[in-house]
Amino acid sequence: MPPRSATRSCARPVPGGGRRSRIDSPRLNRLFAADGKCFDVAVDHGFFGEAEFLSGIEDMEHAVATLADAGPDAIQLSPGQAPLLQRIPGPRKPALVLRTDVANVYGRAGVGREYLYSEVVDGAVEKAVALDAACVVVNLLLLPGQPELQHACVHNISRLRAECDPLGMPLMVEPLAMQAGDSGYGVDGDPEKIVPLVRQAVELGADVIKSDPTDDLADYRRVIEAAGRVPVLVRGGGRAPEEEILRRTEEVMRHGAAGIVYGRNVIQHPDPAGMTRRLMAIVHGG
Amino acid sequence: MPPRSATRSCARPVPGGGRRSRIDSPRLNRLFAADGKCFDVAVDHGFFGEAEFLSGIEDMEHAVATLADAGPDAIQLSPGQAPLLQRIPGPRKPALVLRTDVANVYGRAGVGREYLYSEVVDGAVEKAVALDAACVVVNLLLLPGQPELQHACVHNISRLRAECDPLGMPLMVEPLAMQAGDSGYGVDGDPEKIVPLVRQAVELGADVIKSDPTDDLADYRRVIEAAGRVPVLVRGGGRAPEEEILRRTEEVMRHGAAGIVYGRNVIQHPDPAGMTRRLMAIVHGG
Amino acid sequence: MPPRSATRSCARPVPGGGRRSRIDSPRLNRLFAADGKCFDVAVDHGFFGEAEFLSGIEDMEHAVATLADAGPDAIQLSPGQAPLLQRIPGPRKPALVLRTDVANVYGRAGVGREYLYSEVVDGAVEKAVALDAACVVVNLLLLPGQPELQHACVHNISRLRAECDPLGMPLMVEPLAMQAGDSGYGVDGDPEKIVPLVRQAVELGADVIKSDPTDDLADYRRVIEAAGRVPVLVRGGGRAPEEEILRRTEEVMRHGAAGIVYGRNVIQHPDPAGMTRRLMAIVHGG
Amino acid sequence: MPPRSATRSCARPVPGGGRRSRIDSPRLNRLFAADGKCFDVAVDHGFFGEAEFLSGIEDMEHAVATLADAGPDAIQLSPGQAPLLQRIPGPRKPALVLRTDVANVYGRAGVGREYLYSEVVDGAVEKAVALDAACVVVNLLLLPGQPELQHACVHNISRLRAECDPLGMPLMVEPLAMQAGDSGYGVDGDPEKIVPLVRQAVELGADVIKSDPTDDLADYRRVIEAAGRVPVLVRGGGRAPEEEILRRTEEVMRHGAAGIVYGRNVIQHPDPAGMTRRLMAIVHGG
Amino acid sequence: MPPRSATRSCARPVPGGGRRSRIDSPRLNRLFAADGKCFDVAVDHGFFGEAEFLSGIEDMEHAVATLADAGPDAIQLSPGQAPLLQRIPGPRKPALVLRTDVANVYGRAGVGREYLYSEVVDGAVEKAVALDAACVVVNLLLLPGQPELQHACVHNISRLRAECDPLGMPLMVEPLAMQAGDSGYGVDGDPEKIVPLVRQAVELGADVIKSDPTDDLADYRRVIEAAGRVPVLVRGGGRAPEEEILRRTEEVMRHGAAGIVYGRNVIQHPDPAGMTRRLMAIVHGG
Repeated sequence: MPPRSATRSCARPVPGGGRRSRIDSPRLNRLFAADGKCFDVAVDHGFFGEAEFLSGIEDMEHAVATLADAGPDAIQLSPGQAPLLQRIPGPRKPALVLRTDVANVYGRAGVGREYLYSEVVDGAVEKAVALDAACVVVNLLLLPGQPELQHACVHNISRLRAECDPLGMPLMVEPLAMQAGDSGYGVDGDPEKIVPLVRQAVELGADVIKSDPTDDLADYRRVIEAAGRVPVLVRGGGRAPEEEILRRTEEVMRHGAAGIVYGRNVIQHPDPAGMTRRLMAIVHGG
Repeated sequence: MPPRSATRSCARPVPGGGRRSRIDSPRLNRLFAADGKCFDVAVDHGFFGEAEFLSGIEDMEHAVATLADAGPDAIQLSPGQAPLLQRIPGPRKPALVLRTDVANVYGRAGVGREYLYSEVVDGAVEKAVALDAACVVVNLLLLPGQPELQHACVHNISRLRAECDPLGMPLMVEPLAMQAGDSGYGVDGDPEKIVPLVRQAVELGADVIKSDPTDDLADYRRVIEAAGRVPVLVRGGGRAPEEEILRRTEEVMRHGAAGIVYGRNVIQHPDPAGMTRRLMAIVHGG
Repeated sequence: MPPRSATRSCARPVPGGGRRSRIDSPRLNRLFAADGKCFDVAVDHGFFGEAEFLSGIEDMEHAVATLADAGPDAIQLSPGQAPLLQRIPGPRKPALVLRTDVANVYGRAGVGREYLYSEVVDGAVEKAVALDAACVVVNLLLLPGQPELQHACVHNISRLRAECDPLGMPLMVEPLAMQAGDSGYGVDGDPEKIVPLVRQAVELGADVIKSDPTDDLADYRRVIEAAGRVPVLVRGGGRAPEEEILRRTEEVMRHGAAGIVYGRNVIQHPDPAGMTRRLMAIVHGG
Repeated sequence: MPPRSATRSCARPVPGGGRRSRIDSPRLNRLFAADGKCFDVAVDHGFFGEAEFLSGIEDMEHAVATLADAGPDAIQLSPGQAPLLQRIPGPRKPALVLRTDVANVYGRAGVGREYLYSEVVDGAVEKAVALDAACVVVNLLLLPGQPELQHACVHNISRLRAECDPLGMPLMVEPLAMQAGDSGYGVDGDPEKIVPLVRQAVELGADVIKSDPTDDLADYRRVIEAAGRVPVLVRGGGRAPEEEILRRTEEVMRHGAAGIVYGRNVIQHPDPAGMTRRLMAIVHGG
Repeated sequence: MPPRSATRSCARPVPGGGRRSRIDSPRLNRLFAADGKCFDVAVDHGFFGEAEFLSGIEDMEHAVATLADAGPDAIQLSPGQAPLLQRIPGPRKPALVLRTDVANVYGRAGVGREYLYSEVVDGAVEKAVALDAACVVVNLLLLPGQPELQHACVHNISRLRAECDPLGMPLMVEPLAMQAGDSGYGVDGDPEKIVPLVRQAVELGADVIKSDPTDDLADYRRVIEAAGRVPVLVRGGGRAPEEEILRRTEEVMRHGAAGIVYGRNVIQHPDPAGMTRRLMAIVHGG
């Protein structure tokens, strides 16, 4: 049997990091490329109802068609927009990662709200199955002084985990430590917050982790270590210069990340197809 | 196969707007005319328990009979009044759009209320099937400082979406940004609020959007763009002179709307049948 | 929007046949290539417990690895063997078609048996979902003097149809008219039997038809016509010389078939990879 | 990480056979020793109600206690007798393999019976869970002229497979080709019957195969090949001289068997503990 | 005790304490050694999302491998990490105790929180069965001024008890009286709080108690007495010098404890394997 048919369920060394990921489900084999790496483009921003999130994805038909042509490993969409990807004929297109929860923590209006929520849509896993998704994704939010919100997220994950199991649907958890900023809650890159939150997601049974970069990228090895055998995809965060994005991507991959989940840095780029190609080269080129 | 049997699930150009709608369910084929357009008359105002909403529809038997004769594409009714339409013999009558949620945000008493709700009646989708409705409709309310209400609406939509799926019942969502005014909460025509709210409804899986006009109708293309492949019906809002109504209707149709949902401007008109004919001509005449 | 993103739910002309297929589900978009054609290699023979069916597939690890490398559009497997395909890393491999029913009509011992059965395994559709199959397949058997067997098959299809619907799992039905021969029941290529049986499968709600060639291939247009908008894949039947297989494939594709399902003619070929390439060229080259 | 923690889900070479077994469930890790081999002693004979099966196991308390002390990897028992093993304190004792089906094919009275059955006890898998079994076992019987019996067995396996899946209970299938003999149905060692029957069990989703030796042990490689990645335990069959048993065991292990399931040759031996030690040495010593 | 008659369901004297435990389930026979004693190492700390809990278990693959080699009777893990233990081949390894509830009472941030929760993950018992756990464990938290939290715990236990019964899954309850301290809530060793809480757990149907040491260990007999026939394992609490740990262990065993559940005192020890051996000697040496 040639190497490419080697069973995916064996632990494999990740170049440059010394850590291992264990990937072992038909759908994860569809989400991750044969080298165990994945570049997922997130265009599920409209789900959260914030005006400033729509820039560059006002026209979703166009955005999804452009991205599908650019050919990342996966595209992350909400249930209402997923058909734009899934109606495209033929198997040679990005896999679908289905966002399952709506939240009101983003955007300018977030800070100061007395009432924050993260709501998983009803029948999310069955919907993901019907849409032929390769994975579902849900938040694990940690906001200062918002334990109810964190509890709601733990409950969401626990319920999704139980629903995903019999249907073989992988669960990506997005542990997200936030802090209040000028324009709403923003990413908190403190490893003392990110590491235990990532770990909690793993202990709850996440199949894939989607995690923020740490303020100092040198700390990212600790995130990878906390996740252990669970592959970690790194979030892109806000818009940044191309040069910086590419350099940061190289660094997190060197630290053992299994890939990236970028949104605005691809879709708002003047040349999304070119940017996708350059990022694919880093993620898969090794 | 000759053009007339062309399947409805194909994207078709919408004259005047360059946008496309994708319609692909038996009931949507009953709600929308063969040209993909729809004029829905809303007479579900009594559902909200506000005195000022009853003008012109005090006698519902008469109102429904008049409207059924006038022949719009659809009539929007609450569960208790829907039999007035559905007991009329023969297939050549307006389709039923069933309102599913009661709310207390309308009317003078609305502003200042400490407790606002939007409640979907129990068994709404099964009721819609029993009444042979072509569609159900529910609110997505965005009121300043009322995140619990918005959460409740997100939950309502999520639940209805899951119940509608296996029964092939289309879900019309009515994203409604409101602001406090002299006579209670009123429509907020700010596109910065309407556009992301419409988009959130689409991402949640709305089959049809019923949306307010923007303050400046030139901004309406942005609403249509945010809805993408989902057809948008425009709300009429409060009573206005006939001339203005007709002009506004022509303009939103030119911007790519799939139709209109008007209430008071039809039912309180001295000649509802004539007004209906004139609006049908605009909506379908192209 | 570039051509390759054209929505799959539109009817498209099939070259050479003038017929159209309507394909409109995420999983069918994964089963059929972007041109709407599919070459499925069946290696589910071991499911039936007949000694003579194992020739060439005694070692399934080797057989599946060889086929996965050869790269047809799909491989048809039983639940117990499907993991051999689905554990292969990466998305660039054939889609899984899951066989759901065991039967005892094949092989030498078949004829003369007083008791014939076709049994769908418990939880077949959930298993197909868990295995990330793109389609399930089930028989519709018509044997002389065996109405109980045909009834059992109708019941199987009816049950699978209802289970497939909410999960978006396509159902391939294999209408199979058989007649007693020297070495057991064999294919009956009489179009008077095949055409109405194919039609019955379509009327029961088949998403894809897998049908035997007619004795005179000129009659195959009638099979395609009976299936209407439902795509038809042609079975290969027993081992035949390569030249004949290729010629027959060209002819059925010309008659409007959407593809082929071959087994022994690929797997028992001295060069399965080469044979797969030649057949892929005919199926997709058009 | 030291070698002993190497993940079990990787394919490992089996010494002497060149074949691989893939073992990858917590309970199979409890049934098979760390070397991937297993010696299971079957004392479930009383389940079948045949007088001649009771020799040596008339006193089950004594028999189970003796065997537990002798220390094979597993003991196979019916639900009613399993507590004799499971009430023994401490984890260092053989694992429980729970027999789930009663049949009337054994013994002198078998041949000539008009009505043969194989019945899985109600709630078998939940019972196995409650008894903390490491595996359940069920027959796949092939008797000349008894297709209803074979169908019943296929149905039994299919149902058990679906019930075992969510609970992580491994399913051992015992494909058993029989032929009429002087003292009832006996083992048919014809590889033309055993090989396709073993294969059918694998395609139905067996986690472990328990199979008869072929008449000519040189043919046993074909059984192992047909089972592929599924481990094969070899049945002992009737009482034979110790020397022959040991030699036969060595040979099947050399052919790639993952172990043995012996009953009478252990329990009717004058020194069951000594015989167990000698067989353990062959099975595990390699 | 002679092998054959040894039934675990008989009450047996516990050396040094004069008390008896009644252990009578297959899984408890796997959790407790043949002498009725158990040393369980808890490494489920990451489940709670607190940064300070991860010290020594940052790399769980390594931690679990080290512990599995050291060979205590059991290892306590969360659902997401349990596979690290259960994938190890062979039956000679520690039993799995599965943690079922996440809580936010630990760590520095705990005190002052307005909202405390303890959430049992969905499908916890079925998950424990699928993972082949020997026991599940859940908290019974008593915090000053937090009756909702205690009610939630009572509800958790009541629900788990009912789910565990038909599947024979033992339920370990961890009654935990806490008080606010400088670095968050900490153990309250007051026997006036511990004794009635342990007793409540027993009355709710706990099969095993995991309880804190009392401030004065001489009071521990009262805890054992309150538990009655239910075996009590003693928690280790925070890091302490080895000498003290060993002396405390000897004392609680003398008072009639059935064993210990230690975490940091093993895993943060410079020689976890040596520490495990010394503690095993005390627990089992008697």
